[in-house]
Amino acid sequence: MSVGKLLGVGVGPGDPELMTLKALRALGEAAVVAHFAKAGNQSHSRAIVAPHLREGVIELPLLYPVTTELPKDSAGYREALREFYDAAAAKIAAHLEAGCTVAVICEGDPLFYGSYMHLHTRLTPRFCAEIVAGVTGMSGCWSAAGMPIAQGDDVFTVLPATLPESELVRRLADADAAVVMKVGRHLPKLRRALDRCGRLPRAIYVERGTMADAKMIPLAAKPDDEAPYFAVVLVPGWEKRP
Amino acid sequence: MSVGKLLGVGVGPGDPELMTLKALRALGEAAVVAHFAKAGNQSHSRAIVAPHLREGVIELPLLYPVTTELPKDSAGYREALREFYDAAAAKIAAHLEAGCTVAVICEGDPLFYGSYMHLHTRLTPRFCAEIVAGVTGMSGCWSAAGMPIAQGDDVFTVLPATLPESELVRRLADADAAVVMKVGRHLPKLRRALDRCGRLPRAIYVERGTMADAKMIPLAAKPDDEAPYFAVVLVPGWEKRP
Repeated sequence: MSVGKLLGVGVGPGDPELMTLKALRALGEAAVVAHFAKAGNQSHSRAIVAPHLREGVIELPLLYPVTTELPKDSAGYREALREFYDAAAAKIAAHLEAGCTVAVICEGDPLFYGSYMHLHTRLTPRFCAEIVAGVTGMSGCWSAAGMPIAQGDDVFTVLPATLPESELVRRLADADAAVVMKVGRHLPKLRRALDRCGRLPRAIYVERGTMADAKMIPLAAKPDDEAPYFAVVLVPGWEKRP
Repeated sequence: MSVGKLLGVGVGPGDPELMTLKALRALGEAAVVAHFAKAGNQSHSRAIVAPHLREGVIELPLLYPVTTELPKDSAGYREALREFYDAAAAKIAAHLEAGCTVAVICEGDPLFYGSYMHLHTRLTPRFCAEIVAGVTGMSGCWSAAGMPIAQGDDVFTVLPATLPESELVRRLADADAAVVMKVGRHLPKLRRALDRCGRLPRAIYVERGTMADAKMIPLAAKPDDEAPYFAVVLVPGWEKRP
């Protein structure tokens, strides 16, 4: 009996219409559909594909044991995540060994900051994997905002807001265009950094990018009160447009 | 009579299956489909959507007057392009004024280094535009290569190979993950830059990313002989993977 195929399937940034035809085909072919979620929460990727799940498909929810309960740089967090990914990979491996095709569905693009990558590195030494590229969350955000992000010879960069303020200033001043991720409680620091390098006026704050209830406002008009972890800030380039 | 709607429609990196459901719907709704191409060449974006073009749809080819015949930083090049985009926007405006919905189809994502952006900035002061985000060329490349590109708090950057060698060295050393675009005749310089910052061993050279005849090899194994303008080099991050 031959082993099954592993599919890393990007399902796009949230709008179910931003799924690709290839993702749809993968869902039609997979005997098992695996999806990540925080324990107790609904999986975002599952919600995106829900209307397209085949009847009788085996669902394999992969539930993070911790998300924000432990500091991300603690040994406890790293150890918990490592065990979780090892166990998730073992469950998927069992289905692949049994000859089943397993689709791991992922918000955005599987190999761009996606949890799927942890399974990919564990499973590809033994199994063949095929990746279905997806529309990234950041593309969803600048498209929803109707904001050209980078053009021509622009240098474009993606930064986590977790960086120290001085690093944010240096890197934001050094790029033509930027997307800052994981804004959350780092919003006041990020605002100061953008102000210090003169880039606050063009920055756009985006919450729930391509959801129906998306929120997009100039960062200068957004209070520092609260921002979710997954909020992003867009800093458009193409300043020398003709 | 009401004016038509402008749609900037990403059709993905080349594989027709990487079109989104939303792009498909846009093609079904548009009375006019506009596409960019080099004069005398077939439009790549049109080739991607060809099976989905409605019978009787009005096609509006937008043919670049120059591509590589003039230096990109010359006044002649800039002037020729400005006139071309002005005229293209005027043609589209005429259809919009007539009440027609116009879809401008774009390889990759419309607002990420896309020619559509030149029309968007000219037309959005007068007309409503809706953007259909697409899978970018770079996502198509790292997915086809099965190569995780960035994870966690990685800093990711997109650079043009046109930068001076010292700038390439500085920026490649300063990012966790990078995609270098517009490789072409800059390949020997880019190779030296990657070697100087110790990142040559992991770099992957990709030609015709998600086409059937894609070519992906370690850059270290690729001769400097020739590389097309649209070749890219991927430098994966996530080096501290657990």
